[in-house]
Amino acid sequence: MAQPNALNDDVLPSVGVVYNTEVNSHFITVDTHYECPERILRTWELLTEADLVPKLRKIPIRPAHKEEILLVHGEDHWEATQSIKEADIEGTADYYNRLSLYINHDTPDAALLSCGGAIEACKAVATGTVKRAIAVIRPPGHHAEPDQSMGFCFFNNVAVATRVVQQQTDVKRILILDWDVHHGNGTQKAFEDDPSVLYISIHRFGDEFYPGTPYGGMRSTGEGEGKFYSVNIPWPGGGMGDAEYLHAFQNIVMPIAMEFSPHMVIISAGFDAAVNDPLGGCNVTPTGYAHMTHMLAGLAGGRLVVVLEGGYNVDSIAKSMVAVTRVVLGEAPPELEPMVANEEATETVWLVAKWQSKFWKSVKPQEVIPREDFDPESTVTITDILKQYRYNYLCTQGMLLVPLLDDKMESRYGTQVMCSKNLLVQKTVIFFMHEFGNIQSELQSALTCDLNIERTYLIESSRAIINWAKEEGYGLLDVNLFPKFVSGIKPSKLTKDILVYLYDNYIQLSDVENLILIGHGGACQAILGLILERWPVMEGTLRGVVNVSWLNIPTMSADASDEQLKWYKQHSLVAVPSSHPLVLSGKALKKKKFGKILPVDHTESRSAKLMETAMPNIKDFIADMLDKKIS
Amino acid sequence: MAQPNALNDDVLPSVGVVYNTEVNSHFITVDTHYECPERILRTWELLTEADLVPKLRKIPIRPAHKEEILLVHGEDHWEATQSIKEADIEGTADYYNRLSLYINHDTPDAALLSCGGAIEACKAVATGTVKRAIAVIRPPGHHAEPDQSMGFCFFNNVAVATRVVQQQTDVKRILILDWDVHHGNGTQKAFEDDPSVLYISIHRFGDEFYPGTPYGGMRSTGEGEGKFYSVNIPWPGGGMGDAEYLHAFQNIVMPIAMEFSPHMVIISAGFDAAVNDPLGGCNVTPTGYAHMTHMLAGLAGGRLVVVLEGGYNVDSIAKSMVAVTRVVLGEAPPELEPMVANEEATETVWLVAKWQSKFWKSVKPQEVIPREDFDPESTVTITDILKQYRYNYLCTQGMLLVPLLDDKMESRYGTQVMCSKNLLVQKTVIFFMHEFGNIQSELQSALTCDLNIERTYLIESSRAIINWAKEEGYGLLDVNLFPKFVSGIKPSKLTKDILVYLYDNYIQLSDVENLILIGHGGACQAILGLILERWPVMEGTLRGVVNVSWLNIPTMSADASDEQLKWYKQHSLVAVPSSHPLVLSGKALKKKKFGKILPVDHTESRSAKLMETAMPNIKDFIADMLDKKIS
Repeated sequence: MAQPNALNDDVLPSVGVVYNTEVNSHFITVDTHYECPERILRTWELLTEADLVPKLRKIPIRPAHKEEILLVHGEDHWEATQSIKEADIEGTADYYNRLSLYINHDTPDAALLSCGGAIEACKAVATGTVKRAIAVIRPPGHHAEPDQSMGFCFFNNVAVATRVVQQQTDVKRILILDWDVHHGNGTQKAFEDDPSVLYISIHRFGDEFYPGTPYGGMRSTGEGEGKFYSVNIPWPGGGMGDAEYLHAFQNIVMPIAMEFSPHMVIISAGFDAAVNDPLGGCNVTPTGYAHMTHMLAGLAGGRLVVVLEGGYNVDSIAKSMVAVTRVVLGEAPPELEPMVANEEATETVWLVAKWQSKFWKSVKPQEVIPREDFDPESTVTITDILKQYRYNYLCTQGMLLVPLLDDKMESRYGTQVMCSKNLLVQKTVIFFMHEFGNIQSELQSALTCDLNIERTYLIESSRAIINWAKEEGYGLLDVNLFPKFVSGIKPSKLTKDILVYLYDNYIQLSDVENLILIGHGGACQAILGLILERWPVMEGTLRGVVNVSWLNIPTMSADASDEQLKWYKQHSLVAVPSSHPLVLSGKALKKKKFGKILPVDHTESRSAKLMETAMPNIKDFIADMLDKKIS
Repeated sequence: MAQPNALNDDVLPSVGVVYNTEVNSHFITVDTHYECPERILRTWELLTEADLVPKLRKIPIRPAHKEEILLVHGEDHWEATQSIKEADIEGTADYYNRLSLYINHDTPDAALLSCGGAIEACKAVATGTVKRAIAVIRPPGHHAEPDQSMGFCFFNNVAVATRVVQQQTDVKRILILDWDVHHGNGTQKAFEDDPSVLYISIHRFGDEFYPGTPYGGMRSTGEGEGKFYSVNIPWPGGGMGDAEYLHAFQNIVMPIAMEFSPHMVIISAGFDAAVNDPLGGCNVTPTGYAHMTHMLAGLAGGRLVVVLEGGYNVDSIAKSMVAVTRVVLGEAPPELEPMVANEEATETVWLVAKWQSKFWKSVKPQEVIPREDFDPESTVTITDILKQYRYNYLCTQGMLLVPLLDDKMESRYGTQVMCSKNLLVQKTVIFFMHEFGNIQSELQSALTCDLNIERTYLIESSRAIINWAKEEGYGLLDVNLFPKFVSGIKPSKLTKDILVYLYDNYIQLSDVENLILIGHGGACQAILGLILERWPVMEGTLRGVVNVSWLNIPTMSADASDEQLKWYKQHSLVAVPSSHPLVLSGKALKKKKFGKILPVDHTESRSAKLMETAMPNIKDFIADMLDKKIS
């Protein structure tokens, strides 16, 4: 692509603006609706106050033509929007729910004007009339699907403008970056199978956040030739601010955008992720938007159009738009404080990168080649290798294999249940439930998924328990409830079955007088299930419960009686990281269902050192519980 | 930090420039030196031709004061540079080598002027007199250490300016981004233990590339409180261009810079990584420099100073500086073609990120917690687990443990040498040397180094060979020469020793008539060593050699005779990826020392499927070699 025609800056401003209050004929009087005329009125007011309007070149608005609309929308959709019925208008408050759509007599004209405004802004940039442009228009467009108005949107302004530009100018490869807090379902759908348009959206997703379908998920990436030309970055919740958005920009948006190399960038600029928006629940500041704009302004030789979409706090929209416009005019974005993205966002971005790395070479990490791609004979799962290792190790510790009579159990847990000699005649027995332990590791390079074998090790947290039980002369029943998925078997049911089976056959029938249950990692929750399942018989011998868990704090079920909850609180030790959200918020320490929490400080990665650090407390606790019994 | 004072753009340009030809009194007539007056003359000429000079506000140059110089340099250094001796000047051509330093009578004045120019440019931005500035000055500064002139540099212009700004203005936290192709050893040293200055350098490193010390390596990251406030991104070789530099910016420079949040950014702008530079060997285009400038211009509220350092193609410097200046003036950087960084750069950036992630939370991947941080009892290396697994597996295949008589060998290879029954009476024997096989894996999250156990598997490439040998009824001697490091033992010596030991005791003494050697991965090279070591006795029975290797193509040593080379070429099959550089260049196919190359196409990661894909060819080749003998 050639650069846009050089302009003489002294003659006319090189940044365009589309704004016209005629679009405000679309409004509602029945009730105050979020998508209201004040959204653009206040924006224009603030642009004027900031003295930015004189620096902008006015681009006239006009209604979109039918043939333009039809580049994206179907004939039926065109007809439906042109022939709005009196009954629909009268019933608007009932017919549509308050957060979806309203219509009045002028809605068709306003929607066409808004769309025409987007077209003119984009064409002005694509033809080089201006270098960049902003379009302060409404109603918005990104939810409008080819055949359906929805979510305050009638025509997909940005999608239509994109098609018009592609059809009428040399600008063919277009990036649409949608930072509206909602997924732009309509825009993604319009370019679903089209590799000439890269659609990237950052939005909240899940918990029925609008539009509430699976379409905006990270694995929804387009189809056919357009596969991977839709990039969804779905926040799992609210609270995302500048740090999180810029992290997504640095790790996904900009690398993919540079690999794509657009001829023009259009921002679907909703400001409902802005601080104080009543719907978004996020915290992006005007400065954050300015930085995102600055990054995008580096693409496509600077051909950038900012088109307003959603945003429902009138002041937030206006302030954000002013900050964005300053950058569009060439100012540097204001300074940001030092910042780091939160864990949820970091994780989301990482997962998106892993998925997109199948196609976009600039994003990391890579996803592993599915094992199914290999000759089945030539690979072995690490699970099988670890099972064998554990079995051998426990044999060398003098432990014995516990036979499992049920076929399903045998295929899942065979060799993974072991006990000390003479278990049945021991007075004090430790029933220890755990997983393999974490494997700490790095990959060998950025380019493959080969593990760095020399820097890889298993944290065998269970050894500490096994050695200690041996030293103390306690009986030990050890079960490795290793990770979740075994095809065709529902793991939770089987986990409970095996624990009950082991309890009934190897503990209840034994001479045990003092029983201690210890859980580690994913096995902790299962312990609480076992207690409730066998409470009446267990109560007389059970002296204490130790749980060591880093992700989910095990929770007594709502079925537990007050007596059971009280018992659990008094006879448990639940080691969790002091940085766990439920510990930080104080909730974990208050509620009985969490047991007696021991917050463990550790600066290292969350799971790795928890058992090692908590071990002295665990030993003291168990000694205490056993003493209590004796005294 | 507050924003710089708003300026009235109509009155004076908001971008400053320092330029004065007085600094050109430092020159040499003895010979044409790279660091010549034309460097800035041509730059100014091109800035003028591009009509950019009228848009810049001239900032007067002046000599740096002694007290300013002493903020960075020692008193002795000051004295040495002020009292240059006649003898030094006369002997300049001999005394310094051509690429290091030259001096004339005016050198002290020129060096002080250059430094004073950098100071004034930085102060003008720090105080808000201008928003941004460029300093077109020489001699450069970034090699000048606190106590030593070197590498064309006398005073460290940027370091001194940084200290002056910190001392005299509110601007305290400063990022110095050094994109000169050489490491700015002087600048890093000046702020070695100072966390108020973040020094990031992208440069070539190794192979004695100037300055040629380990100081610019990726693990050289500052000391004391300044630890991790030096970030070195060391390219392992030349050929790096826009894609590679921008990849480093996206993955290291910008995330760390935003986490640091500078009050001002200074670019140590050498242009010797530019296309056509006679020293750099890299390919950064003016557009690439423009993009880097644009990214940095988003930081620190736009407070940006560009200070010329090296660069030795006069036209390249000038064109690059024009492109940078356009962006400094607020223009968008020109469009870039779609691009992806090369593998070497991707790998370098990944390694730097892994190292820096110990401190900077915004960069990934994380480095694994050293195993030594754990109680030794509570971890097991994956190597030990895999050894056990292999041993068990081969036992189930009916193979027998081969005892190793030497203690060192036993501790390193014990349980890892196995043979089929009746090895000593077999006519055809396969001697198979390999490693564990690759483990394909992903981490479980972006936040820890916990392996995703459910998505991890070992590619057991050796099974195919073992099963095939069994089916064919051949004898098999199998040795797992697993990865490199065993503390205190030099692996190559031991590897050779064990192969010779095994050959002498289990093959030479047997009834073997047809011997086939097969190597996989890192074990391949060792095979060639064994052949040369036992050539006279081996020649009569050795029928063929198969090597399967993805990184290094095994190479016959220079000691090999013509006869041996010829034999190897005729009796070998060396399976390597068709994408291997030596295959692509054609070299591997031509030279006898590489044997008979079989390029294997595979779209997947480099090592994973090589053996699986090559297996049919391997079987055919061996059948052929054995037939030849018989016929």
